[in-house]
Amino acid sequence: MRLQNSDLPALRADIRAGRYRSHTAGLGAGYLQTNLVILPEAYALDFMRFCQRNPKPCPLVGVSDTGDPMMRTLGHDIDIRTDVPAYNVYRDGSLEGSVTDISDLWTDDMVAFALGCSFTFEDALARAGIAVWHVEHDTTVPMFRSNIQTVASGPFSGRMVVSMRAIPEDRVDDAAAISRRFPLAHGAPVHAGDPSELGISDITRPDWGDPAPVGPGTVPVFWACGVTPQVALEAAAPRLCITHKPGHMLITDIPDTAEVPVLAPTPGNQ
Amino acid sequence: MRLQNSDLPALRADIRAGRYRSHTAGLGAGYLQTNLVILPEAYALDFMRFCQRNPKPCPLVGVSDTGDPMMRTLGHDIDIRTDVPAYNVYRDGSLEGSVTDISDLWTDDMVAFALGCSFTFEDALARAGIAVWHVEHDTTVPMFRSNIQTVASGPFSGRMVVSMRAIPEDRVDDAAAISRRFPLAHGAPVHAGDPSELGISDITRPDWGDPAPVGPGTVPVFWACGVTPQVALEAAAPRLCITHKPGHMLITDIPDTAEVPVLAPTPGNQ
Repeated sequence: MRLQNSDLPALRADIRAGRYRSHTAGLGAGYLQTNLVILPEAYALDFMRFCQRNPKPCPLVGVSDTGDPMMRTLGHDIDIRTDVPAYNVYRDGSLEGSVTDISDLWTDDMVAFALGCSFTFEDALARAGIAVWHVEHDTTVPMFRSNIQTVASGPFSGRMVVSMRAIPEDRVDDAAAISRRFPLAHGAPVHAGDPSELGISDITRPDWGDPAPVGPGTVPVFWACGVTPQVALEAAAPRLCITHKPGHMLITDIPDTAEVPVLAPTPGNQ
Repeated sequence: MRLQNSDLPALRADIRAGRYRSHTAGLGAGYLQTNLVILPEAYALDFMRFCQRNPKPCPLVGVSDTGDPMMRTLGHDIDIRTDVPAYNVYRDGSLEGSVTDISDLWTDDMVAFALGCSFTFEDALARAGIAVWHVEHDTTVPMFRSNIQTVASGPFSGRMVVSMRAIPEDRVDDAAAISRRFPLAHGAPVHAGDPSELGISDITRPDWGDPAPVGPGTVPVFWACGVTPQVALEAAAPRLCITHKPGHMLITDIPDTAEVPVLAPTPGNQ
């Protein structure tokens, strides 16, 4: 059920018009989906440095010009004010609410950041025959606050959030090798095995998402998680910040096999 | 002749003291070497977006805090004012001269950017038995202004500069696969074959570097080149800009096999 490129404009039109407001899991197979962070320009350089210094939890795949809502490197017609199914709005670091359109909040000093997400490598694991429990059971991946410190930048800091997938013992090395091929989707795991080494005392009680069992013959494997920047944003507490609503991602025009997340420049007499 | 980590502090001390002022080719085998761009903060966000949008010519591997000369994510004690063997100083887009220490030019509003360089994948090609002419003959790789437009950001724009290596016909696919594994060192080639497709009319007359023959049974293969940001910097013409002197790279403490170019964060009760 891989999405055809020809379906993308219709889906994006539905999202833009507010007709589609649900999560995007499974919709973007074959195309890069991304997390979203929108900040005033005064925070942009520090946040971009935070992403550069923490590329596993925060893989930058696109950045708008200041005040320009079009994500020009990620698609032919992506308006970040309308083309995500649902947004979370934060003021002074606290969640104010969720909306499906941010046209009234976008101002000339805003910068939009798109960050890679785990859907990309989960698709690749599935294609390699490595089943992931939360995908098969249509729940949200369990996420935990780890004891790994991120590298701070200006007001952005905090511990890395990790997601957990229980992988059959004999496929752990495969899962690591496969996910390492997707540096823009968190890359290789940060840890496999004993959760206590990451400071996680109870694997059955995630800090975010739904619990998932670690069955017999499986190993808990932990990946850097895209919730990490939200923790860093709470620490920075900018006056206004807008993110996607978890699970409600930006779907780009970039194939998930692309070497770089940029609409291909073409040779020619330009 | 791979450099041992224990040799790095001594080499860096020689560079810092001005005793070593020569090029760094061959010195950094095993460790990531980088290009360098230093700019006033007013240009930093636009330049960082330029690098994000053009990751093949401009792979960002480290960015300093504004005014902080220590490259904290790239090494344990790297002072960017002294730890590169030679620097080029540009004023208003024009080369003013070369120096071996920029302590007197560094100010509180400066930001230093480290960009990956081709030494990393050339080492990998050599280990795979793919000989590269300019390395074997101790000349500078031939570089050409191509007809590929970079993706502009603010004042930064221009055509992509490409480097050329003649690769035996039966190893072109291997060379592409090997270099693709190093996204922080320009990644896969941008073109293999007829130079005219890149707008290059005479392969024997490079725009930068030394000519290199394209012998019988070899194919000219073109990679995105770290001279590209210098062309973009000439277009932007900031009042002051400092780069490394070509070939005189920053040697980091990051192994060139590292998944991400950041000193590894360690789990623990920090």
